[in-house]
Amino acid sequence: MSDKITAQIAFLNEADRLKEVLRATPIGSGARPENTGEHSWHVALFALVFADEAPAGVSVDRVIRMLLIHDLVEIDAGDTPIHGDIDEVAQAAAEHKAADRIFALLPAQQGVALRALWEEFEAAESPDAVFAKSIDRVQPVLQNLASGGGSWRDYNVTYDQLEARIGPKVRKGLPALWDHLTGPLSAWFAKHGPKSP
Amino acid sequence: MSDKITAQIAFLNEADRLKEVLRATPIGSGARPENTGEHSWHVALFALVFADEAPAGVSVDRVIRMLLIHDLVEIDAGDTPIHGDIDEVAQAAAEHKAADRIFALLPAQQGVALRALWEEFEAAESPDAVFAKSIDRVQPVLQNLASGGGSWRDYNVTYDQLEARIGPKVRKGLPALWDHLTGPLSAWFAKHGPKSP
Repeated sequence: MSDKITAQIAFLNEADRLKEVLRATPIGSGARPENTGEHSWHVALFALVFADEAPAGVSVDRVIRMLLIHDLVEIDAGDTPIHGDIDEVAQAAAEHKAADRIFALLPAQQGVALRALWEEFEAAESPDAVFAKSIDRVQPVLQNLASGGGSWRDYNVTYDQLEARIGPKVRKGLPALWDHLTGPLSAWFAKHGPKSP
Repeated sequence: MSDKITAQIAFLNEADRLKEVLRATPIGSGARPENTGEHSWHVALFALVFADEAPAGVSVDRVIRMLLIHDLVEIDAGDTPIHGDIDEVAQAAAEHKAADRIFALLPAQQGVALRALWEEFEAAESPDAVFAKSIDRVQPVLQNLASGGGSWRDYNVTYDQLEARIGPKVRKGLPALWDHLTGPLSAWFAKHGPKSP
């Protein structure tokens, strides 16, 4: 019992470090970058709020659990800005090495179960993972809109790039939300997006 | 449909402000105060990790939902440091007024349901609320231990005060965890706590 709780406390203390991992997207006020701890809360709240938009067969409670742990690997591997220039193979390797270390802090059976949930999220194939990914992709879009551009300005993103990088994943899990955002997004990019040469 | 999504987006954008509400407890590294957004994530993760310690009859998924929304009222009412000198009646009134405003941003039926979940948490009587409250109370204890004292130093807290203010609530929901912490806590306070005059 005591060893089990010692391991669980070690994991939760380690998880705390996610509050110091900074993302490319600002918080809504634009005052500072968002950290991955508060991002993980916000996306879990998105899942709760958009529960009735979830496609048939999705367990929203399972999606919430998935979103609570989906970015723990960033403690070691750091955030991957979606609009940045990323070596995807190297990043995936770093994240798997991080998962090896972080989930192993837990009691064995629990560590295996939560790691499997993270692998399912990463694979983005199951209905729960597809819905979770759509939320993880759309939340920064709302943060950028709220904060006046955020990482779109920093990375000189065009509307076509946004559609190509974000649209397909969001449409798979939250099509009504993406449709809803088309108007505000095209208006924002028409006014503030990079100009053609 | 569109009005519903507009309301849900407004709520989620408002919730974002919880990332700028600062708590009395520091993050584990001690580098800065914790904010209530990342705190809400961390306690939800506690519920997931300590699921197998939950008393019979507790729905851990319901507890997680409760913890995701439990502090939204702090956007208007601010954080209430447990070791601070608080006018509890005034604080409760401010929190209820905040709940009136914030949950009303949602589509009506959803706002009523989530507000009821928050009221249940506040009442701290149902099995789910008792478990959620025990987590909300014990997480800052671990943060203070990790960061070298945190709010115990700031508020000159004694071990007896900690036991009186925190112990009963944690013992109700997570007795094995509180028993586990007795040794580290008494050692910390013996070494660093306020000295008797």
